[in-house]
Parts: sequence; structure tokens; C-alpha cells
Amino acid sequence: MRIKAINPNTTLEMTENIGHQVRRYTSDDVEVEAVSPERGPISIESYYDDFLAVPGVLEEIIDDEAEFDAFINSCWGDPGIDACREVTEKPVVGIAEASMYVANMLGAQFSVATILPRARDFIEDRVRTTGLWGQCASVRCTDLTVVETEETRDAATEALYDAAKRAVEEDGAEAICLGCAGMGGLDEPLEERLPVPVIDSVAAAGVITEGMVRLGKATSKVMTYKQPEPKEQTGYPQKFHFDADAGDD
Amino acid sequence: MRIKAINPNTTLEMTENIGHQVRRYTSDDVEVEAVSPERGPISIESYYDDFLAVPGVLEEIIDDEAEFDAFINSCWGDPGIDACREVTEKPVVGIAEASMYVANMLGAQFSVATILPRARDFIEDRVRTTGLWGQCASVRCTDLTVVETEETRDAATEALYDAAKRAVEEDGAEAICLGCAGMGGLDEPLEERLPVPVIDSVAAAGVITEGMVRLGKATSKVMTYKQPEPKEQTGYPQKFHFDADAGDD
Amino acid sequence: MRIKAINPNTTLEMTENIGHQVRRYTSDDVEVEAVSPERGPISIESYYDDFLAVPGVLEEIIDDEAEFDAFINSCWGDPGIDACREVTEKPVVGIAEASMYVANMLGAQFSVATILPRARDFIEDRVRTTGLWGQCASVRCTDLTVVETEETRDAATEALYDAAKRAVEEDGAEAICLGCAGMGGLDEPLEERLPVPVIDSVAAAGVITEGMVRLGKATSKVMTYKQPEPKEQTGYPQKFHFDADAGDD
Amino acid sequence: MRIKAINPNTTLEMTENIGHQVRRYTSDDVEVEAVSPERGPISIESYYDDFLAVPGVLEEIIDDEAEFDAFINSCWGDPGIDACREVTEKPVVGIAEASMYVANMLGAQFSVATILPRARDFIEDRVRTTGLWGQCASVRCTDLTVVETEETRDAATEALYDAAKRAVEEDGAEAICLGCAGMGGLDEPLEERLPVPVIDSVAAAGVITEGMVRLGKATSKVMTYKQPEPKEQTGYPQKFHFDADAGDD
Amino acid sequence: MRIKAINPNTTLEMTENIGHQVRRYTSDDVEVEAVSPERGPISIESYYDDFLAVPGVLEEIIDDEAEFDAFINSCWGDPGIDACREVTEKPVVGIAEASMYVANMLGAQFSVATILPRARDFIEDRVRTTGLWGQCASVRCTDLTVVETEETRDAATEALYDAAKRAVEEDGAEAICLGCAGMGGLDEPLEERLPVPVIDSVAAAGVITEGMVRLGKATSKVMTYKQPEPKEQTGYPQKFHFDADAGDD
Amino acid sequence: MRIKAINPNTTLEMTENIGHQVRRYTSDDVEVEAVSPERGPISIESYYDDFLAVPGVLEEIIDDEAEFDAFINSCWGDPGIDACREVTEKPVVGIAEASMYVANMLGAQFSVATILPRARDFIEDRVRTTGLWGQCASVRCTDLTVVETEETRDAATEALYDAAKRAVEEDGAEAICLGCAGMGGLDEPLEERLPVPVIDSVAAAGVITEGMVRLGKATSKVMTYKQPEPKEQTGYPQKFHFDADAGDD
Repeated sequence: MRIKAINPNTTLEMTENIGHQVRRYTSDDVEVEAVSPERGPISIESYYDDFLAVPGVLEEIIDDEAEFDAFINSCWGDPGIDACREVTEKPVVGIAEASMYVANMLGAQFSVATILPRARDFIEDRVRTTGLWGQCASVRCTDLTVVETEETRDAATEALYDAAKRAVEEDGAEAICLGCAGMGGLDEPLEERLPVPVIDSVAAAGVITEGMVRLGKATSKVMTYKQPEPKEQTGYPQKFHFDADAGDD
Repeated sequence: MRIKAINPNTTLEMTENIGHQVRRYTSDDVEVEAVSPERGPISIESYYDDFLAVPGVLEEIIDDEAEFDAFINSCWGDPGIDACREVTEKPVVGIAEASMYVANMLGAQFSVATILPRARDFIEDRVRTTGLWGQCASVRCTDLTVVETEETRDAATEALYDAAKRAVEEDGAEAICLGCAGMGGLDEPLEERLPVPVIDSVAAAGVITEGMVRLGKATSKVMTYKQPEPKEQTGYPQKFHFDADAGDD
Repeated sequence: MRIKAINPNTTLEMTENIGHQVRRYTSDDVEVEAVSPERGPISIESYYDDFLAVPGVLEEIIDDEAEFDAFINSCWGDPGIDACREVTEKPVVGIAEASMYVANMLGAQFSVATILPRARDFIEDRVRTTGLWGQCASVRCTDLTVVETEETRDAATEALYDAAKRAVEEDGAEAICLGCAGMGGLDEPLEERLPVPVIDSVAAAGVITEGMVRLGKATSKVMTYKQPEPKEQTGYPQKFHFDADAGDD
Repeated sequence: MRIKAINPNTTLEMTENIGHQVRRYTSDDVEVEAVSPERGPISIESYYDDFLAVPGVLEEIIDDEAEFDAFINSCWGDPGIDACREVTEKPVVGIAEASMYVANMLGAQFSVATILPRARDFIEDRVRTTGLWGQCASVRCTDLTVVETEETRDAATEALYDAAKRAVEEDGAEAICLGCAGMGGLDEPLEERLPVPVIDSVAAAGVITEGMVRLGKATSKVMTYKQPEPKEQTGYPQKFHFDADAGDD
Repeated sequence: MRIKAINPNTTLEMTENIGHQVRRYTSDDVEVEAVSPERGPISIESYYDDFLAVPGVLEEIIDDEAEFDAFINSCWGDPGIDACREVTEKPVVGIAEASMYVANMLGAQFSVATILPRARDFIEDRVRTTGLWGQCASVRCTDLTVVETEETRDAATEALYDAAKRAVEEDGAEAICLGCAGMGGLDEPLEERLPVPVIDSVAAAGVITEGMVRLGKATSKVMTYKQPEPKEQTGYPQKFHFDADAGDD
Repeated sequence: MRIKAINPNTTLEMTENIGHQVRRYTSDDVEVEAVSPERGPISIESYYDDFLAVPGVLEEIIDDEAEFDAFINSCWGDPGIDACREVTEKPVVGIAEASMYVANMLGAQFSVATILPRARDFIEDRVRTTGLWGQCASVRCTDLTVVETEETRDAATEALYDAAKRAVEEDGAEAICLGCAGMGGLDEPLEERLPVPVIDSVAAAGVITEGMVRLGKATSKVMTYKQPEPKEQTGYPQKFHFDADAGDD
């Protein structure tokens, strides 16, 4: 089984961490390749970054569609996840949705502990589109940039501890989703100090994706996630132009 | 890894099928034991059956809590799932929630094809409590009893095909959840005839449960899913009485 | 008119109080019998207790279905209320729903003042399934167990006063539902000190149930609340097995 | 116990019927006075009629506030119900809300069978503000005007039968609320032909109101339903001007 | 282009201010007439005031229907807006809805800063019926009466500043709607001191109304907003009686 | 006043039509420039097209931020609207939101008549994020591609007529939003044949945008719509890299 974990930003240190976390929690027979797109932001902290990142993410799926059994979209916001599902029949799993499903099975209400306050709307949007708004006790932001979550592990842990503690004590959270792919592995030090399960969203996506492949189901091509219509895409490489052979209904 | 798949009803033929389906989709190192409770209905088709089944389901978890890594609640309705989570720290996964998570990652909207019309409210309730009401195109009932889904495979397939086809064509479903544990394995003949992925809910729960164990997280004991309070439970065996040592906050 | 008020737990002191409160607020021609099931927990403070209580509640209805005009389910959570409605054509009223309807007619927003924090999810669930989530300002928990609400009246009053006061001042509650059948009669001392109506949920259920009987309507048997399907219920007495004569549609 | 049932329109035939239905279902010791306002439309079939009716309804409460124990607002739309609650401490019950509460206890989903299609938005609005939108299977309109429901009983019964039958068969309704005060008494012929309980909304309000009085609770005056602020109301009689003595918080 | 801005209360100072604000923000070719009804309260601070105001508002539209191109309902609550739309084909714009649309395009979440706490339910109701509840961070009340917002500009500014500041800092508001027509012009001093756009709701309604007229669309007469049914309206002048010629479907 | 209307696709015929429609409905002193991005799809019919279009849309705003008073995002889906608001302080108006606001003021419920069925999820998503899901009677798709709506006016009109007619008759729509910028001008032939207002979404955006400029408010920069964080955007021109001088809070 081969899984391609796509880090939608271009910070390679984070990409490496993502690959490490997916490998660590999946079975031995799962081969994991972690990549960053060739184009896009070094981190995603706004709607702007999100939209600039998506074409690169799509390219990573288009390039290797035949060679992998599933794809992981490794940014908490699952940027362009619906578009990703259009360009492949293989399952695509977002780390946001995967972590929320796991949280929803472990506690009655979960909170998301995440980066800068400006990302709150972006994060909450993903909770809503996934469907789990009613199960979300709160989104608690820190002052961390994405890169800081990756580079200053102790400070990041401290800031997330504070956010998660308030989520548990003030908002009634019974599980915590770590709301950024750069937080991979921080679940362990946090869980030592918090009375609730803390979910590394990348790890969650890893095991869910392995399960999706074992299940053997393909992305639905009946309607919303059909292959993109064949058309000119000015300014994008030829591979972004889909053929007409996919068969409309 | 050891998973106990609990069929909340006492129809052993179905229990066997459940064990088979979980084994079939999980890794080789996963050991699966499928059981039925000693007490309870031969099938769950009403709120009444649901409530009579739960004490037996709880007993199956209490009895073997230490010997398994996770438990599956194998009725589409996930009867008593919150109570199950109170009596163990091991992950408990319901087949309804698992199948809906899988469906939500494969299509933009899913429908549930299920048994008798009287179960619709029961089924819809589970969609709502899971949080995915907004993603559910419809619940389509057939005239099948639970036992018929198990015993008359051809007729069941035919009835489910009709229900699923209407869900796709009239309600906009892009994926189908089979809404009964007795439908295990029917996803294959149905998928041959339908343009959308059809999810065997037991199989979905199998792979999700394996993933939960790989992730290594325990059920949150901070609040809602704390161990039951120590108290007298008249008319139930001693094992149903919990000790006070679990430590309240 | 004969009403059977079922206390789903086995604390007889509470059962007596329930009978007293229903009698006190209903007409003189209403005969009230208050009972506890023979099996079940001494109090309901978790989903676990809730599920262990329901078979006993159902038994109380099945045993005397012909002899009463209506049934009251006297636990704030209305445990198994849908199943109760399946086993009888007589109206079944839950104290949670009744108290919320009353509150909804007296104030623009109500809060529920109730027992232990672990019960919050259980309580909120009932607010949601009744439909009145949008009218509910908050659920305010105390540190009271169910038995303490019954046995230590002064301490219970004090704790509920604090919870209700915060609900009014911080959450905007304009009416308070007492969220446990053990709080019967505490509405009076609380109302003396609070600027809002305080609703004894058992009393509310009493008057609503009397009204339902006067109205003369039977529980709908067309679909969800049909008589349970005839089937084997292993481990339950014969009376739990329904006959086939009820007539399916 | 004295209840004043206010028919918000000026059709006296309907007022009489309302009084009859309330008396018929309440206890012998309940004294019922049914009235129409001196000003207002002969029937309420639009938002326009609704707003022209409310001042007259308020006047009926203001005039006799001290002499009654409770008031019924007898139009399915409960016009001005929040304003009614501001002008009295006595309970005010709307026939729409009362009938929905009753329906919600008898079936898993209810529909409203009512008058002209143009009233649908008006009716649906009341379902939503009451909180029971999620329990409402549908609002089914007929071609009946309000006056026709009162005057042509056979035709009205026929039209309502058709609407209710479709609600049951196509929308899944398990109970029917008759969505106009002019339909009082039609529940009986309809119930003979339909497989579900049919609720005369006036009768439902009657028994709920009696219950509210027995309970002895007053409308909350802490915030939303405080007595109107003292101020000039140009063009309205002096009684519409409230004094300042009510005591603000 | 001629716009009639109706101040639903009888405080002429406020009416003048409303006219001023609408004129100030609309094009030079827009002629604005601001009026108060002949009947109604001097201010709207309760549901009671709201309902007593509406007949006068309707009269203002009925009187001049042919002479204006559009009407503005200038109370934050848009009292009787649906009825207003029934009595004219010209567009009717409420200041509440207009300000929320503007806010929704300027920030991710808005709050409403408004008058007395008792009006909160009334205000929130309008947020909900407009559809923007999910975008509303909070409704923040002050201790201001409507008249005070008009007469004590400095004190009003101070109170609104405090409310808005808390909305931004504690509730996450990114834009503020001034929730009373008496606050016209206070957006300027407030915006100087707050980090978010502050919307004068009357001004917002002015520009939206001008746009509606430019667009040239008429209010839909197909169903809900049809001309009122022809009928007797006892106690109202003859002009309140509509003819039958409007053509029902 | 200068408004830049951005057609997110590269079909210049459509761009011209967009410019024409905005000019036609705005005041004489409004200068309108209609453009297509240099990169992106020739039409937007999927999530894929949507995401490939956004970088080009953002570029159009970034390039001319100082020279225009407001921007229009002219695709019914308002692609990347949140990101657009991050890159400018000038108001940005989407044609989807603008048309829905207009519809919400003209009828009690609106429907969207639009292109290919595969776009339904994309369209419904925008209804939901705008907040008006509860006011949306239906989204009715045709078999039209975007380009066909522009090129085959008669066939497009016919297909939209059928869709809109069903929306009115079967779904209860009282106003119709034309759900594609390529449908500009088709409101006129459709309104001649339909009993409801038909809204040209581009025209609606035009008048709303003019109003926003008259109002003089800037996009909120306090949180979600702050200028993008300064960072490397690999593969994008230098102008996509924002400076740090915008001042974080």
C-alpha cells in the first residue's frame, strides 16, 4: 500500500515530520511518501495562503495519481479537498476531518488548539463543512505561526497547553485536536499534562487513510467529484487540462 | 491487536458474518472475536429492541474489558454507544458513525439504505447525533426485516438496489451506507449495479477501529465518559456495579 | 382518570415525592400511582444508568397498560421515552419535555439547573431531541448527586440557587427548569429568592399529562411508535415478547 | 379558574366555536370566556391581517388582566404572543405552540394542515420560533379561507383530509395539527379516516392552559417579557399607556 | 428616484435624523422623504411597542404607494416588514437587514450594539429571521433608551463604544451594526476609536434601497407577499380594506 | 467612483457582458472596468476550476488595488472571496451573495437556477456560507455549461425557464437568482414568462457595490481579513509577497 502525504506548504522540515508521523502510526506494509508542492506559500495562515497553495496540491495528485493508493491533505483546513477528490478516484483524506472523526469517537465534545487568531475563521469553516460544528466546544488560538509550531517545540507545547487547558476547563472540551500539521508529535508531551486525549491530526489521517485503502472504495464519480470538465486552463501546465474521455452522465 | 465485535442482537448467523467482514478488511495481525450478548432481542428494529439490547452489549464490554484493545458496536444505530464509552477506556466504534465518516470522505452527500420504515426515526436520530445530518441526502427504507437481510440475500440485494437507486437519482446521494449489520457483504453485488460507492458499515467500522488502536488513544475520562458512578443496580449481576476507585474530579 | 408516574430509579423516597408532586398539582379526580421499577439503578447520573433503567421502566408500562390513562417518565432525560411510546397507546409524558414546554411559554429563554457535571451531555441531548435547543440559554450543573437532591434539601437548594442565579445573570435565562425529579418542591424556596419562574419538572409533567388525557388522543401507531415487532427477547420475561396481532401497515 | 380565550379575528361564529372547544376539554371548574377584539380583520390569512389584529388582542388582555387566570391566543400563528406576555403576568398560551407540543408527544414527526398557500410562510415561521422545525414533517396548505373552514364544514373536512393524507403518506407525518382556530371539532371526522392522531389546536390550548394555571407559575418579568416601558402611544386609548411603577431591574 | 423613509416611531427628531442620513449617502438624484406615522409609540423598545407601531407604518406605505419608488422601514427589528411587502410592489428595505448584509461583506462576523437589554430577544429574532445568525458574534446591549440615543449623543457614544469594544475583544466581532435608527451618525465618532467598521444602519438601508430601485425589480406577488385578501378590517380606516382586483392564483 | 468587475474565468465574451450589465444598472458617475485574469480556466464548473481561478482573481485585485474603489467577484460561488478581502481594504462584493441579499428582500424564499448538476454542491456551499440556506427553496440545475449560457441565448433561456418554473411550482420559490455570470441579461426574457422576480446576479452586485462605495466603509482588518502575512510564495510573482508593514495586532 502506498500513501502520498502532501504538505500543502513548502516548509520541508514540516514535510519530513508529516512523513514521520504517518509512517509511525500505520502498518509496516504501508509505504509513505511525504512531499511539498513546487509552488505555494511556506505556511498557510490565511485564506490567501490557502488559495495560493491549492494548485500545487492538485499538481501533486495529478502527477502521481496512478502510483499511489491514497492521498493525505496535510493542512488543518483541508485546503481544496473537494477539488482533490475531483482529480483522482483514489481516496483523499484531510487531516482536519480525520482528527475530528477520531475526536468525536473519544469524547462528547472536542476543541481545536491551533495557530494565530486570524486563522480561526478558516479553521471554524472546516469544522462546519465537515459537519461537526455541534460537537466542537471551541477553537482556541495561540500566538504561534505555523513555522513556530515546527521550530520552537517547547514554546509551542507551552502555548498549546494553555489553549487546551482553557478549552477543557472553560469550554468543556473532552478531547483536543491539534489544529496544524506542524504540531505532529506534540500530542505526547501535551497528553502527559492534560486530562484528555490529544490528537495529532497527521497521525489520525494516517490511520484513517490506511483504513480507507483496506476498505477498497473509490471516490464517488457520479456527480460532485466527477473528473474536471475538459477545458483550457490558461497559465497552467498541460497536465492541468483534463481529457473528455471520463464519460459524463 | 484484539478487537471484539459485538452484535447487539442474538442472531448468531449475523454475528458470524460480522466477524467475517471485520477480519476480511483488517490487517493480518488483527485478531477479531465476534459475539452476541446473552440477553436481548434477536434483531433491532425499534427503539424498544434497542433499549432491551443495550444491557447485554454493556455486559460484553464489562466482561472482557482487559482482554481487548477496542470494541465495535455492530448495529446501525450504535445503541448505547455513549454508555459503552463509560464502561471502558478502550476505543468503542459504532458501525453507523464509522460508515458515515467513510461516506463523507467519498462523496459530497450520502444516503442510508436500510430496513423497515419504522426504523427511519431511529436511523435518522443516529445521523443527527453523529453530526452529519447536513451531509445526509436521505434515509431510504425497504420492507426488509433485519433477519431477512441476513437470510434472503438475493431479495435483500434487490430491495436495497431499488432503495439506493432512488437515493442516487431522486435525492442526490453520491455514496450509500448499508444501514444494518446484516447487510455485510452486500456492498459488492450492489456496487456492480450502482454508479456510487456502497459502504458495508461493518467493514468500515473494522478498518476505523484498527486505526483507532494504532493511534493508541484512550476514551476521554474527564467528564461525560467517566466510569459510571458506584451505585446499586438492582436486578443486574454484581459486575454491573462499579467501584468508587476510578477517581472523580 | 388514572396516571402512573414512573420513577426510573429505585430510590423509593424520591418515588414518593414524585407521587406527591403530581397529585398536588392535578385535579381532584386524578388518581396518581407512583412507582419504581423492580430492576435498575438507585439513581440516573450517566448514560450507563440511563440504559440500565429503561427495561424496568418499560416493564412498568407493559404490566399495567390497560389500567392507566397515561404514564409519566420521571427522570430529566426522559430515558427510553420513544420505546415507552411503542409499548402503549396511552400518552407518555417525560418530565424533561413537559418542563421545557412550560418554560418556553413563560420566558424567552430557559436554563436547566441540574446535578453533576458529567450529566450535562445527557441533559443537553434531551434539550436537543425535544427541539428546544435554540430556546435553551444554558445547562448549569451543580455538584449534587441525584440522591443528595432528595436527602439534603437545604444544601441542594443552596447549590441550585447558585446555579440558577448564574444562569439568569450570565446566560440570560428567564425561566429555570429543575433538571432532576429529586428536586420536586424546591421550586418554592428558589422562586422566593430568584427573579424568574422556577419549574418543578414533575409538577409540570403532572399538569401536562392530565391535559393529554382530557384531550383524549392516543399515541400515533402509524410508524415510529408502532407496537414492537413480535420476536424473541432472550433473558427477558415473557411479557416483553409482543404478539403479531397489532397489524403492520 | 377563569380562562379568557381570545379569537384574534372578528368572526363571532368562530369565537363561539373556540369557546365551545375550550370548555369541552377542560375541567368542570374552568370558566371560559371567548371573545373577539373590537378592532381587527374578520380573518387572519396574511402577515398584514396578523399585524392589524394584534392591537385588538392586546386590548383584550389589558382590559381584563385582573379578572382571568390565563389567556389563550386563538390563531395558528400565535400573533403577537411575545407582546401579549409583556402586558400580563398571567400565562398566555398560543394555540399553535400548544398543538405542536401535544403533537410532539404523540408522534415522531407532525405536519400542519392549514388554510391558503399564502399563509405557509406565516405558519412555518411560527413552527420555527416555537423551536419545533426539526420535528415538523411539512406544512400542507389547502385552498380554504379561514371563513370557509368555519362555514363549509364538509368541504373543509374533505380538503383537510386530502392535505393530511398526503402529509402522512408523502412526508412521514405521524400526527396532524389543524392549523386554524376555525377547524375546531374537525379532528373527529378526520381521525375516523386517518391513521394518525389529529389535534384540534384550540382544544390542545385549552388543556395546556388549564395545566399552566394549576401549576401556578407567572410569566417571567425579568427581561424580555417585562411590562412595556411607560411612554406615549399616539392614537391608542389611554389604557395602552403603561405606568412606570412596574420596577425595572 | 423617490424614497420614503418611515421611522416607525413618533419621535420627530429621530425622523429628521433618518432623512438626513439617507440623503447623505445616496446619489444626488435621489429624493428622500422621512416621516413618522400618525399613530404609534414614541419609541420601540419591546414587542409591545413593535406591534403598536406596525399599523401606522403600513398606513404610511398605503397612503403613498404610487408616489415613491421604494420604502425604508427604519427601526432595527424591521417591524412588520413582511406585511409591508404585502401592501406594495415597490421594494421595502429594513435597516436591520440592510446593515447586516453590509456587515457580512466587510467582516467575517458582526455584532449588533444596541439599546436596553429587554430588546435583546427582539433584536436577535431579526438576526435569525434574516438568516445571518451564524454570522452574528453577539448582540451587545447598553442601558440606553431609544430616545437617549437620539438626545444624549456623547453618553450614547460612550455606551456604544463600551459595548462595541467588548464585542470586538470578547466575542470576535469584526464589524459593528448600530442597532437603532436613533444612532444615525454615531458611526463616525465610534469608528475613530474602534478597530472595526461601524455601520450606521439607516445609511446602509439608504444605499441598498437606492440599489434596489436602480435594479428595477418589484416585490414578488406570487405567494407570501401577495396583496392582502379583500376583507373587513373593523376599526381601521377604509384605505386598510383591499380590493379583490389584485388577482389571486 | 471606479469599480473593477473581475470575471474569474478567461472567456472574454462573458467579461464584456459583465461590464455591460454593471454599467447598465449603476449611476452615471460610476466607471466600470471588466477584466478576466491572465491565468485560469475558461469557465468555472467544478471545485477544480474554482481553485485554479482564484490566484488570477487575487492578482487582478493586487495589481490595481489603489486605482479602484471596489471590486466585484463575478462568478456565482464567489470563488476565493475571503482571500480577496484579505488583499484589499476596498469593499469586495460577490455576485452570489449580492443576488441572494436582493432576492431575500423581494420574496419569502428564493431558488437558484444554474448550470450543470455537478456544480450543485459548489453552489449550495455558497448559499450556506452566506448564511441564507434557510431562505433557499432549492438549487435547480440545467444541462448548460457556462459557455453555453453565454453563447446560445435562446436555448439557455429555455432551459432556465424550465428550471425556474419548477422551482416556483414545486419548491415554492418566490424569486429566482440566475446562478452564473454568463446569464447576464436573461432576467428580462425570463421575467416576461415567470410570475416572480428574476435576478441578474451581476446587475445585483453592481448596485450593491455602488452602495458599498457610497457608504464609505472599508473591509475590516482587525482579524480574519487582515493583510496576508509576509512570507515566501514560491512560484508566484513578487507582487504576491506581502510586506510586513501592515501592522499586526
